[in-house]
Amino acid sequence: MSKVELVILDFWASPFCMRAKIALKEKGLQYEARTEDLFGGKSDLLLKSNPIHEKVPVLLHNGKPLCESTIIVNYIDETWPSPPLLPPCSYGRAQARFWADYIDKKVFDACDNIWRSKGEAPVEAKREFIEILKQLEDALGDKDFFGGNTFGFVDIIAIPLTSWFYAVEKLGGLKVEDECPKFSAWMKRCLKRESVAKVVPDPEKVYEFVLMFRKMLGID
Amino acid sequence: MSKVELVILDFWASPFCMRAKIALKEKGLQYEARTEDLFGGKSDLLLKSNPIHEKVPVLLHNGKPLCESTIIVNYIDETWPSPPLLPPCSYGRAQARFWADYIDKKVFDACDNIWRSKGEAPVEAKREFIEILKQLEDALGDKDFFGGNTFGFVDIIAIPLTSWFYAVEKLGGLKVEDECPKFSAWMKRCLKRESVAKVVPDPEKVYEFVLMFRKMLGID
Repeated sequence: MSKVELVILDFWASPFCMRAKIALKEKGLQYEARTEDLFGGKSDLLLKSNPIHEKVPVLLHNGKPLCESTIIVNYIDETWPSPPLLPPCSYGRAQARFWADYIDKKVFDACDNIWRSKGEAPVEAKREFIEILKQLEDALGDKDFFGGNTFGFVDIIAIPLTSWFYAVEKLGGLKVEDECPKFSAWMKRCLKRESVAKVVPDPEKVYEFVLMFRKMLGID
Repeated sequence: MSKVELVILDFWASPFCMRAKIALKEKGLQYEARTEDLFGGKSDLLLKSNPIHEKVPVLLHNGKPLCESTIIVNYIDETWPSPPLLPPCSYGRAQARFWADYIDKKVFDACDNIWRSKGEAPVEAKREFIEILKQLEDALGDKDFFGGNTFGFVDIIAIPLTSWFYAVEKLGGLKVEDECPKFSAWMKRCLKRESVAKVVPDPEKVYEFVLMFRKMLGID
């Protein structure tokens, strides 16, 4: 087999970078994570590799760039099919992509609306955040993971975002476990998984980062 | 072969519905398009089939619902692989998905910002719209279609949105052909294709619809 070189242009607190790293770990692939200085100045390699969005993560596969985290996870699954992350049938894949898309469109913005708020977080923002999680709880149903018995695509898309939930809880005055116990149990199940535990940072550290970020943005 | 029943919950002016219909035509598949009354009241079947977004298009494949147009086109390509819409290699597929995602995130909203404006469309909105098309022109390069010599996935995602461009041009006081001649030539190439010509409506009809919609929204 030819040598595989995998580099991730990375930032530790980015849930989107975490997705790519968890997917690579699930496939048992080694990678080098190169930290980007998002506040001091992005690297020339990042600007060259992702000229459209200028965002992390970028996955460089033998030098060839891939951008947008959900597309990267999909690429990893198609390039190294074992063990599979997406379901085997096209209908199952479409369902998984539907929920990944729902998560992409809803969860990060809903968190943002809480942690970026000046003073007390608006009741409407908190209501919307919980409503989204309840929708995901419904999609999870009684399954262990979104795809069934095994950790897969939708779990990889969703779990990194939960590393910001502690900050959202502290700043929003809410508790995910009280509102969405099944979603919370799913979070705990995922966090026990080695690929996740090794990649997802300590929520306290993310909370400190969010407080620092709020100061930078002039919110506090 | 077992019988394939394909129903699209449809609305003629929706570029997203057009995507699903063009993809089915490219595969040589027969479908029934059931028009939804988006203003008078959505059907129970739509609300039941797409409870999360309550939007068209929905593709019902032997009764099983699929939602979100880009996911539907991907599903059609994976379920009926010949002729292929996405490239054969995973890197090519990731590139195609990147541009589909870019189009999904940018083009419709940029059109909206022009045709929904009260009075003269803001200069900034027009500048952004043209900038997005120039970006797509760059991605197209000297190729006939986004994927190369043959009409494919990204073309199907992009071309339906152009049926609203005449309305955008009239209301925004701009001309796509003058600003982006290569993109305009690509549009003309696509419109010659049978699958596209049969699905994409007359831009004058879309313009009339937009004028009616503006009245409904209280803009005019």
